[in-house]
This record gives sequence, structure tokens and C-alpha cells, in this order.
Amino acid sequence: MITVGVVGASGYAGGELVRLLSRHPQVKINYVVSGSNAGQPLSRALPGLAGTPAGALACETFDVGRAAQAADVLFLAQESGAAMRAAPELLDLKKRVIDLSADFRLRDVNVYEKTYQIEHLGAQLLDEGRVAYGLPETNRVFVQGAYLVANPGCYPTATILALAPLLAAGLIETKNIVVDAKSGISGAGRSRFGLDYHYAEANEAVKAYNLGGSHRHVPEIEQELSVHAAPANVSLTFSPHLVPMTRGLLATCYGRLTNPNTTTEQVLDTLRAAYADAPFVIVRDADEYPSTKNVQGSNFCHIGAKADARTGVVTVVSAIDNLVKGAAGQAIQNMNLMLDLPETLGLEAPPTWP
Amino acid sequence: MITVGVVGASGYAGGELVRLLSRHPQVKINYVVSGSNAGQPLSRALPGLAGTPAGALACETFDVGRAAQAADVLFLAQESGAAMRAAPELLDLKKRVIDLSADFRLRDVNVYEKTYQIEHLGAQLLDEGRVAYGLPETNRVFVQGAYLVANPGCYPTATILALAPLLAAGLIETKNIVVDAKSGISGAGRSRFGLDYHYAEANEAVKAYNLGGSHRHVPEIEQELSVHAAPANVSLTFSPHLVPMTRGLLATCYGRLTNPNTTTEQVLDTLRAAYADAPFVIVRDADEYPSTKNVQGSNFCHIGAKADARTGVVTVVSAIDNLVKGAAGQAIQNMNLMLDLPETLGLEAPPTWP
Amino acid sequence: MITVGVVGASGYAGGELVRLLSRHPQVKINYVVSGSNAGQPLSRALPGLAGTPAGALACETFDVGRAAQAADVLFLAQESGAAMRAAPELLDLKKRVIDLSADFRLRDVNVYEKTYQIEHLGAQLLDEGRVAYGLPETNRVFVQGAYLVANPGCYPTATILALAPLLAAGLIETKNIVVDAKSGISGAGRSRFGLDYHYAEANEAVKAYNLGGSHRHVPEIEQELSVHAAPANVSLTFSPHLVPMTRGLLATCYGRLTNPNTTTEQVLDTLRAAYADAPFVIVRDADEYPSTKNVQGSNFCHIGAKADARTGVVTVVSAIDNLVKGAAGQAIQNMNLMLDLPETLGLEAPPTWP
Amino acid sequence: MITVGVVGASGYAGGELVRLLSRHPQVKINYVVSGSNAGQPLSRALPGLAGTPAGALACETFDVGRAAQAADVLFLAQESGAAMRAAPELLDLKKRVIDLSADFRLRDVNVYEKTYQIEHLGAQLLDEGRVAYGLPETNRVFVQGAYLVANPGCYPTATILALAPLLAAGLIETKNIVVDAKSGISGAGRSRFGLDYHYAEANEAVKAYNLGGSHRHVPEIEQELSVHAAPANVSLTFSPHLVPMTRGLLATCYGRLTNPNTTTEQVLDTLRAAYADAPFVIVRDADEYPSTKNVQGSNFCHIGAKADARTGVVTVVSAIDNLVKGAAGQAIQNMNLMLDLPETLGLEAPPTWP
Repeated sequence: MITVGVVGASGYAGGELVRLLSRHPQVKINYVVSGSNAGQPLSRALPGLAGTPAGALACETFDVGRAAQAADVLFLAQESGAAMRAAPELLDLKKRVIDLSADFRLRDVNVYEKTYQIEHLGAQLLDEGRVAYGLPETNRVFVQGAYLVANPGCYPTATILALAPLLAAGLIETKNIVVDAKSGISGAGRSRFGLDYHYAEANEAVKAYNLGGSHRHVPEIEQELSVHAAPANVSLTFSPHLVPMTRGLLATCYGRLTNPNTTTEQVLDTLRAAYADAPFVIVRDADEYPSTKNVQGSNFCHIGAKADARTGVVTVVSAIDNLVKGAAGQAIQNMNLMLDLPETLGLEAPPTWP
Repeated sequence: MITVGVVGASGYAGGELVRLLSRHPQVKINYVVSGSNAGQPLSRALPGLAGTPAGALACETFDVGRAAQAADVLFLAQESGAAMRAAPELLDLKKRVIDLSADFRLRDVNVYEKTYQIEHLGAQLLDEGRVAYGLPETNRVFVQGAYLVANPGCYPTATILALAPLLAAGLIETKNIVVDAKSGISGAGRSRFGLDYHYAEANEAVKAYNLGGSHRHVPEIEQELSVHAAPANVSLTFSPHLVPMTRGLLATCYGRLTNPNTTTEQVLDTLRAAYADAPFVIVRDADEYPSTKNVQGSNFCHIGAKADARTGVVTVVSAIDNLVKGAAGQAIQNMNLMLDLPETLGLEAPPTWP
Repeated sequence: MITVGVVGASGYAGGELVRLLSRHPQVKINYVVSGSNAGQPLSRALPGLAGTPAGALACETFDVGRAAQAADVLFLAQESGAAMRAAPELLDLKKRVIDLSADFRLRDVNVYEKTYQIEHLGAQLLDEGRVAYGLPETNRVFVQGAYLVANPGCYPTATILALAPLLAAGLIETKNIVVDAKSGISGAGRSRFGLDYHYAEANEAVKAYNLGGSHRHVPEIEQELSVHAAPANVSLTFSPHLVPMTRGLLATCYGRLTNPNTTTEQVLDTLRAAYADAPFVIVRDADEYPSTKNVQGSNFCHIGAKADARTGVVTVVSAIDNLVKGAAGQAIQNMNLMLDLPETLGLEAPPTWP
Repeated sequence: MITVGVVGASGYAGGELVRLLSRHPQVKINYVVSGSNAGQPLSRALPGLAGTPAGALACETFDVGRAAQAADVLFLAQESGAAMRAAPELLDLKKRVIDLSADFRLRDVNVYEKTYQIEHLGAQLLDEGRVAYGLPETNRVFVQGAYLVANPGCYPTATILALAPLLAAGLIETKNIVVDAKSGISGAGRSRFGLDYHYAEANEAVKAYNLGGSHRHVPEIEQELSVHAAPANVSLTFSPHLVPMTRGLLATCYGRLTNPNTTTEQVLDTLRAAYADAPFVIVRDADEYPSTKNVQGSNFCHIGAKADARTGVVTVVSAIDNLVKGAAGQAIQNMNLMLDLPETLGLEAPPTWP
């Protein structure tokens, strides 16, 4: 059995890691960190775990030595700024680290510091190329065998899966991309309170936020899409929205077709070819567009597309569960690849419906 | 008092007309049509009207003669294809007609027939220029005194209000416009059943539909925006989405700035100038983006914007209540203008919050 | 015009007062208090008021002298403990006070102090009989002409309206009453944060809280129902629940029939007779049970009932909008009665549907 | 491997069976029936199954011979009236049958016929005692080894689990029980359309229905509770409500304490003792009341309780997922017992949170 630890286990991503790891056949959760619940069973923070082995685990405070002793794989689901402190020592101890924060997602430390307003303390790991960006569908070869994986953000996951193959194939221009994303409210996390997440105000409301390139995920999206568009650099307009649902993320992506007569079928074929070996990406048929409900609670990403010769624009829609493929599920998929396990192990369960 | 009739009173737009007309100080509802409830008090179809004068009105079947005898103003809130049959005779009888269906929105009958797959029987009225497109903020002068008003669709209302001033001012290009719209589910109407509107499937779900220019509102949007962009024609990419809420419509509109250095303040100033005399349009301050909740139950439209020099794109966000400014409230605003009443009469109530 | 002030204008009850008072034909809002927004227009706190006269009002901090100078009627929508300090001086200045907090609801100061854990400073007003309990349907004669009205809680309003006539008529026993109440989440207020009101946790969840008579509204309900059951005292089992909606409150009330063969029609007739002159109470027909949606945004209360000879229990269901009939609307209804205006003035608007 | 068939696979209970059976380690789904999708892959009806083995299964029409040939265990998730026709032949062929409809839940055929208005064709199976009522927590011994199990309804499951131990222990009276139940809307099924389940009308609404003992689950609840109260017969007041959420069912149950001084801890101890060997029932601590969210997507039932000496009433609250413990999960739990597998096999996954 693989021993794992979850740091930040009482948050939404951490709780989802516990839920999913509980049914992973090769994993034993040996260490759960929740500072505010230290000494309590995890079911105190997450009552739904009562009666399950995971619920009986005693929460601990974070300690690198204890972490390394208890677990071979550490999932770090904390605020940005924490993982960069813990990762170097864990790696020295030959532990596998999967960081769900932003600390290692950006290759350029200056961009990170500007974006997150935190001094980066782990630049050496980035410089030495020891970090794999953990989007398996586009980056599998780097994740396999890696010791440190930067798990992507939810918006980048949905966006990159929708657009990377079209950029790589030259089907769309590298400029003039628009991404209009709609996220469920769990994306804000469990400990961030405020009127935006207050039930009475978030319910029956749709709103945009952080327009004009100001969302922190923009540099990450552009960095990764640029890999596929090389040598061109991709820049895009990104508009996140809050929609009144708990889970789910839909990215509606607009690209200018380099050849306006490209058909929907050609676009879908390009996507299908790119994901022929990707067990979690489902390319839908023409005129079928995914709902976030199609992937609820699962690690799947559904993608649909429509090319419009009249305007020369292709619209690509991708749907994920922001807490699974957008966080915890993807982290486990990465773990499987790091350890040379079957990529889908423990993640095969179909989505919940309805 | 102005006597009015509401045809289609038990539907969502019709019921909203009744609600709003009930508090209009110059109006007496004299005639309500609901075929399936004929002979019953309207409160049978809409139990919330119990105990109000409107609830006691007896539903009738539609009859042009009876309509003309009972009311000076007729609101036709029916499926497309009905108003074109009734309008000519009502106009001959000097009645005012406000059609909430699509029958008279498109100036080109061929476009109508192609879009709605219905033979148009009222072409003469269009040819004679007797139809006013009822978006008062851009078309007030045509609505004033008119006898036949085509009340705009909900998506066109939100989109045109967001973009027309920028096109008129030459701030954005006439091509490469993207409109990503999110609608509450009441937009589908009360009598259209199906899994898309079934609570268990619509809840906790966001999905796109009718991509690639196939939504029926696209010709209407392009027709009206082209007026402001003349002599250029506007074409755009339009993506409607269903979001899990009852009311509300948010249009996130993307335009390429003709001068990429145009600032957010310049955009907002252009919008403010255009709507200086528009009592229902609120242009929000920089970095404030409207929520559909800001306009819930009211005839207001809130607009926010962000220009991004990095990408040369301006994002304009407009929020309306699809059943009020997107249907019934706008119809009453049109009635006020047709009859030379104060534009806001009966519509002054603030939105509901939360 | 009647000049009014709203203290606590940026909260949910206060904001709803502003919304409803804005359309009251005899009222001028002259004073709005929101400490955290002092010096700002009210639309800063409530963006939906932008473009309305109320939105332009400048928020002030609370000052009794200023309040008395600015307004003839003061609505106090604050936390418990505040109104008891301000009311005596306002009354000395011949102002009308409608207190939406609990300060004057309980006739026995000891019960208040035990329930709210606050020392009561306004006992004299209670002792002198200068407080009217502001549920007009059962207490109209005391409210008329009163200077100080204690506006009832939302749960008491729905419960008393459902049960008082049946107790008064001796149709049900005074013991063995069960009230199972379901409230929308706005009932918790705008400034109370916590996981119970966090969107991601409140959504898709129903839960009970404060079982076993521990909810603060229990003494108030029992006090008022006992008036109708005199000389018997009423005690009941009360279970509040949170349901995932913003507004609305449904009280499902169970009473033991004194005669198990009492029919549903007899129960409904008793309710109809009791509310023959109550413009806001709608008694539904047999086999029709109210939905909270039937009263959304309005001051109505809908009541349905079913007697079951098999078990000897009558079930009475009442639906209100917790922020209107359960707070702000009822306060205005009280103001109308205090000032000898028509009871429904400014409150005639039908509910919002859907 | 155990071969199973799911009849009615495109409905909510059927789809949930497929989802849960997909991760059962000893099961192979060999036969899926969906008449309206015959010849299509199951993922056509349930797009979330795309990319999973279950999604690739070809839907068939129902045929007893084919069913018996394909599967050792048949889950019948159809409308009432269907299972009674198929079961006898399947049993003759030594197949195991788990019926999720009401056909075999009521021991008295006359009560069935009166309740469901269908002539019962399978009375012989009932008469011969070959039917086990499939609530394992109260009936495990009868389910073990059975060939025909009547899977309980969702309301009965939640109610019986809350009350049976208290009745068996004589803690509450057998009369004067009130059950106020709140169900998510998926309980109405996938193919039942109507305004009650139309998103715009069900959202932001709570309502009661089928009051006064008229709900079809009442005879089932009373029959089973009476077993525990024997020789007394239990009768109760049952009020189902629709609440705006997709999944989840909360039953708030009120019983008169035979000794009013019974404490909450005594009640909880009685429940804990009753469920000491029940892996899916979690008895919560005093002052903790379950939310439906605590059990979302899982087979757990959470129970909380509060005794009130003042009124002599104990309130017991139970929460289940109506589609899992209230339907498909319980059916699989029954299958495990029928086949002498570990009771929790395939059902260990924790609930989804949030």
C-alpha cells in the first residue's frame, strides 16, 4: 500500500482528496493535517465522514518530519505560500509531493511574485526543472516518475483542455482568444467568507469578477497554452463568473479559426485525436454541449465544439468538476502517474446523476 | 384610466405583465386571456394573485373584437405566429399593440421566416413602417406615439444596451464581437417542459445551447446593432447558456477596441453619455460588475465594463431581469412612451434584495 | 407626507423596508442609518438602489435627536438590545416607533432576559402597557393609534396566523402542538457569516437547528397563542429548519382536534371567518397547500389545512415571505394602522412569480 | 463475478444503480433495460456515463427470458405494477429479484390495491412469505438469503430508521406520532413532468403535498413501525414536502415520550444500541442534527435527537440521500445480504462534500 498524507484536509480540496483516496485500492491515508481541528477526528470537521475509516483519523498540525515519516506521498492543499516552504525538505527525504496551491505552477518566479504578492522561496526547484506541471493530458511524460507536481488550477485545467489541441494543430490563432468561465461557488474555498459567498446573496445571482486579465490564473493559462502554440505566445481575455451552484466549472472558449471554413467535425476530430489516450476526456458529438452536471463528482472533462464559418470563430466548451478534475481528482491522477500505477486507479467511478 | 388587455396572462411574461400593471397608477386591466383557464379567475392559474384585484379577473379566450372593445392597449404575450394574425385588425380599430413575441422584431420578412419557420402574414405592417422596435434606450423617438411596438427579446435587450453606444462611438470593431450570455430558466417559459428545465437536471448545472449563431435572437441582435454601426454590418458570435436560477440574464460582451489604449473610464463615459437620459440604465463604476441580483424584479439594466490594453479587448457586462426589462417591464415602458406618459410610470419600484 | 427613518438600512430587513417604503404613496424616507456606510449613498451598500431616490440617500450614524428631527416614524431594524435604549426618548418626543427587533415582543422582562441574555432597560414601557404587539390580524385594535409597536418575528407570524383562530375556536387542544418550520436563509441576516450560511454548504442541504424549545421565538409564540387559548396556556414543540432558498418561510403546524371528526372544511371556515377582514391572509381551498413562492416578495400569508379523522390531527400550513410579512411588510402594515391609513397602503403589489 | 441486470436503467433510481454497481468489486452489469433507448448505448440516456464501461452497455427492452439468461440478480426499477408480473417467473428460474417499486412492500394485497389503484397479480408470493422487506437495519435476518426483496420507499426508510428503535424500546407512544418530511425533487423521478418539478416553479419554493395520510407511503410506514410496536398498531400523521434541492431527504419525527423525563442521551443511547451493528447508520451526538448534505451521494443515514421534558416530546431527525439509502444503495445493500457478501461491499465511499 502507498501511504499518503493530506495537508489541509478540512478544506474543500482536502476533503475531496480524502473522499477520493478512501476508495483508491492501493492507498492508505496515514496522515491528515487540519490545524484548527488538531487532536480531533477528521469527522469533527467533515461530519459526512462519520462511520468511515477516514473519519476516524486524528487531525494533526503540519510538521515536515512527521509528514515524511507517515507518508510516501504528500498532498499539499493549503493556501499559496506554504508548499514552497515544505517541499524542498520533503523532496530531500525522497517523498513525492503534489502541491494543489499555485506555488509551483508558474515557471517564472517573477510572474509568481507579481501575481500572488508573495516572495518565492522555492525558486531553486523550478530552476532545476524538478517541477512537473500536472495536467496529465498535455504533460503526461513529465508527470510520470516526477517527485514534485504542481497541480493546475481549476480554470486552467478546463481552458487548456479545450484549447491546447487546437493551438497545437494551428486551427486557431494565438491571439484574439476569449475564455468566458463559469464556476460553482465551492471554488472560493471553505474558509473565505464574504457577501459574495453568503447564501442569500450568491443564490439567484450570476456575476463576473476580476475582468481584464486580473485573475491570478491568467498567467498560468497563457504559460501553458504558449507551450502548444510555440514559438508564438498566447494571450487571452479571461472572464471568470460565479454561478449559483456548489460544484462545476464550464469554460466557453472562443478562438479565431485560421481557416474560417474549418468544420465542426474537423475541430472535434482534432480534439478526439489529441485525447485518444486520455481516459478522462470525453469529446462529445456535434451539436452536443456538455453540462457541468455530466461530470459532477467525477474526474472527467467533457468537451463540445461548434465552428461557425459565418464569423470564423470556433466555440469550444469544456466542463469539469472544479473540486475533482479541477483539484483533488487530478492530484490523484498525477499520483498514479508519478508512481507508475494505472492512470485511472481509484478514479473510475462515474459522475453522480442527477 | 387606460384600459389594457393581457393576452397570454398565465405564462411567465403575461403573469409578470399583470403583476407590474397592477401597480401602474394609470392602468386598469380589463381583459385577460388564458385559453386553458377560460372562465376561471386568473388566481386559479397564478395562485399568488389571490386576494388582489387582478386575481379576480375572469380569464377569457382570445377574440379580437372582444379585445378591442375591452381595452385600448393590448399586450400580446403569445407564441410567435399569433400576433401577426391579430395585429392588423387591432390597428384598424385604433388600438395600441405591444407584441412580446418575435413577429414584428425582424424588418426582413425573409429572415423571420427562415428563423422562425413560420410564414409571415403581417408583412404589410412592416413594409409600411408602422412597427417600432421597442428598445426605448436606443429607439425612443420611434416608440413615442407608435401604435405597434415589437418588444425586444431578452438576449437582444441586454446585448444591445451593452454594445450599441460603443459601436455608435466607433470604440469597437463591428466584427469579432463575442457575446456570452447566461440566462435564468424562466426564459424558457411556463409551458415548455423537458429535461433541460426539469428541476433535478437544471439544478447544479450550467450548459451552453444553440451555439454557432443558431439561436433565434442572433438576427435580431445583428439587425439592431448594425443600425448603430452603419454603414457597417455587425456580425457576432453568440452563445446562450442556461444557469440554475429562476430569473436574471447576464450578457458578457467582448469587443475589439479600435484603439487598444482606450481606457475603462473612456468606455464608461461613453456608456454614461449614451444613457444620460435613460432612467433604467445604470452604468456602474470602474471595477464594479453587475450581478443579476442587482436588478431582480425590476426594469433596470446595470452595465459594467473593463478595457484591457494588453489584449485590446473591452469586456462589457450587462444584467437585466429577463422577465422585466427583458419582457414585461420593457413592454410597459413602451406603453408609457406610446401614450406620452412618464417613461417610468409604474416601474419605479427598486429591485428585490436579496 | 409622512417622514420616516430606517435604522439598520443596509441589512436585509432594513433594505426591504427601503424597497417597500419607496413605493408607499404617503411616505418620504428622510433618514437612513447604516453605521458601516455612514457618509455614503445607500446605493453603496445596496447597489440595486442605484438610480432610485432611495439609493441617493446619505447613510448616517444613529442619533436619537437627529432621528426625531428627521422623521415622524422610526423603523428600528437593529440587533436586539438597541431599540430598548432609543425608544423611550423617541416616544417622549412623540415619535412613532416600530421595532423590528425582539426588545418589546415579550411582556415579561424576565423571560426576555433569559431568552436573549440581555438586561432589559425598557421595562417601564412594557409595564405601562404602551407596547402593542404588531400582528395586525390578531391584534389590530391595539396597533391602531399606538406609538410603540413590537414587530413580530418571522416564525411567530407564520405560526400564530396558522393556529390562533383554531385555538380561539376551541378546535384544537392547547397542548400537543407541533410546529415544523422551514425558513429561507435570508432569515439569518446579512452580517451573520458562518458555514451554515456559506453558499457551498447551505445549498443542496436541509437541516434542523435549535430543537427542543431552544429557539428564541418559542416564548413569543407561546405568549401570543396563549392569549387566544385563555385561560389555558399553550406550549408547543417548535423545530426550525434551514432550507436552500433565499426567501420564504413555511410553517407546518399540527394540532390535536378536540373533536376528531372536525372536517377540513370546518377548519377552513374557521380560518376564513377569522380572516374575513384581513386583507393579507388568503385561506386556500381544500387540498390546496401554499408554496412559499405564492407569497414571494409580498405581504401576503397563504394558509391551507387538512383535518384527518383517522389520527385526529389537523395540519395547518402557512406560507409567508420572511422579509415582508415576516419583517418589513408587516412593519409598514403596522405603520398604516398606527397612523389610521388604509391598512394595505403601499403593500398592494402582488407577489413575484416565478 | 455476480451478473446483474438493471431494469429501468435510464431513470434516476436505475441510473444510480448503474453508478453504484459500477464500483462494486464483485458485480458485472450484464443487462440494462431502457425501452425508450433500446439499441442505444446507455450513455445516450445518461451522458455522464460516457467513457465508462457502463456507458457502453447497449440498452434493451425488457424480456424475462433474456433477463434470466443475462443476470443472476435483477434490479427492477420500474413503475408500480411491472415487478409483480415479472417476479414469479424470475423466481421460478432461481433468480434473485430486488424490486424498487412498491409492488411487494405491503403485506396486505387489499391495502396495496387501495393505495396504488392497481390489481395485484403477485399475491401468492406474499402469501407464501417469500418476500423480504428490504430494510436491512430492522430486517436483516429476513433479507439474508432471500430471493425476492421489496426495497423500501425513501420516506419509509428515513422514518422507520428514526422511530423503530424508540417504539421497540417503549420510549414513545404508538399514537400521536407526527412525521414532517422534506424531500429533494429527484424523488419525483425523471419522467414525471409538471409545474411542481419545473425548475422556475420548484426553485425558491417549499411546499407540502398529500397531507392528511394520503401519501402512498403511509401504509408502508405504519405497517413496518407496527412490527416494532407490537402488539400495538402505529398510526401517524405524515406530511411530505418538496424542497428546492436535487437529492436528499430529511424526516423530522415527533413522538410523545412515555416518560416525559426521558433524556436526550437516553434516546441517543437507545438508537446507538439498536444500530450498533448497522454500518450505515450514524447516530450523532447531542445537539448535533444531521443535514442532508452529510449523506449526499452515500448510503449513510444520519440520525439526531432531542428530548424535551417541558413538552414531553422527542424530536428525531434522520437524513438520507433519497436515491441511495432511499433507493439504489439500499438495493445493493440488500443484494449483498441476499448473497452473503459483506453488507457494505461497493458502498463504502464517503458522501460527497460540499
